[in-house]
Amino acid sequence: MLGPRPIVSAYQWVPDFARGHVRDVRVRWALEEVGVPYETRLLDVMAERPADYLREQPFGQVPAYRDGVVDIFESGAIVMHVAETHPGLLPDAPAARARAKSWVVAALNSVEPITQQLAEIDFFHAEADWTKERRPQVLEQATKRLHQLADYLGDRDWLEGEFTAGDLMMVAVLRVFDGTPALEPHRTLTAYVKRGEARPAFQRALAAQMQDFKEEA
Amino acid sequence: MLGPRPIVSAYQWVPDFARGHVRDVRVRWALEEVGVPYETRLLDVMAERPADYLREQPFGQVPAYRDGVVDIFESGAIVMHVAETHPGLLPDAPAARARAKSWVVAALNSVEPITQQLAEIDFFHAEADWTKERRPQVLEQATKRLHQLADYLGDRDWLEGEFTAGDLMMVAVLRVFDGTPALEPHRTLTAYVKRGEARPAFQRALAAQMQDFKEEA
Repeated sequence: MLGPRPIVSAYQWVPDFARGHVRDVRVRWALEEVGVPYETRLLDVMAERPADYLREQPFGQVPAYRDGVVDIFESGAIVMHVAETHPGLLPDAPAARARAKSWVVAALNSVEPITQQLAEIDFFHAEADWTKERRPQVLEQATKRLHQLADYLGDRDWLEGEFTAGDLMMVAVLRVFDGTPALEPHRTLTAYVKRGEARPAFQRALAAQMQDFKEEA
Repeated sequence: MLGPRPIVSAYQWVPDFARGHVRDVRVRWALEEVGVPYETRLLDVMAERPADYLREQPFGQVPAYRDGVVDIFESGAIVMHVAETHPGLLPDAPAARARAKSWVVAALNSVEPITQQLAEIDFFHAEADWTKERRPQVLEQATKRLHQLADYLGDRDWLEGEFTAGDLMMVAVLRVFDGTPALEPHRTLTAYVKRGEARPAFQRALAAQMQDFKEEA
């Protein structure tokens, strides 16, 4: 343990569609998996960020994390830090450990940039004229990437056999499609996401994020 | 040192506009910074990937990296691994080390997804009808993000004072705009990228990637 309880930044309110999906849920999930209690620093999403927060989180986003020793931003970096400093989210063997970390980065840089583009079109620009031409191109890229992911996963429960930080991040990224038909052609990935979301640590993390939102704006 | 020379996958040919920008240059750069000699495994970008390669790199991309102990994919994960296992790219102090790693992830997940969208429009879809409506939106997002980055950098040479893996990755991401006017409104970032590219280790990495390309398709 690293001294005081870690503090994770989050929002006190977001619109309904974003609830459960704000990225602090990834960090909460990692902390729940390794059994570390934490506190939250709740920010007003509509207000300008305090200047001291921009030194911590240069883009003004959530989550930021500090624990008295380190002061980190980016959900991927925080999850990796939690995984590296507590047992439970990374295998001990160097080869398996390196693989798990590859998947954390793959989720963030090879999957999310494409899935996020598709989600952005469907959630924010569905009626816009430009998406008529563009959406099929993005869908094709996303479909190819998801097929490659499904091929690799095969009939295993988790990407490298046992659950790791890599699965946590991949499930967190793919969850953007919860309640939409985008994952339907990729049945094994739908099941993979459900498996991740069924973990008690995820359920606690989700409940904690929801609990921190005030009822109304 | 970890036994045999690491092997980095790369392409034996890519179109002119991509030369110097294929992502193995990031890994070559990291290895040059820490003084580790490596070998390359050259793939044919036009041909189907060997099945054994897809076990190593599930998306069929480059770079993949192996060194006899680990077998990693994703340029971000490989750079992080090189930085963690050799002195030179991460400070020793835990707080500064965590900050540098935050920047590696920030480059990959908070900057590249937006800069890449802008680059994709300008390099591949400049004539497409849909970009008339879409490009200004993407440009606005990119501009905001780059201003935040420039604000954080201030008048320092590197994001956290001394050069780290975080700067390596951020410069590698921003280089996509070399030779285009996209970074012009962000003078300090243009200078930052030039500073990164002027490092002898980067120059050697770039030359090595160029050398591996066959003259013609």
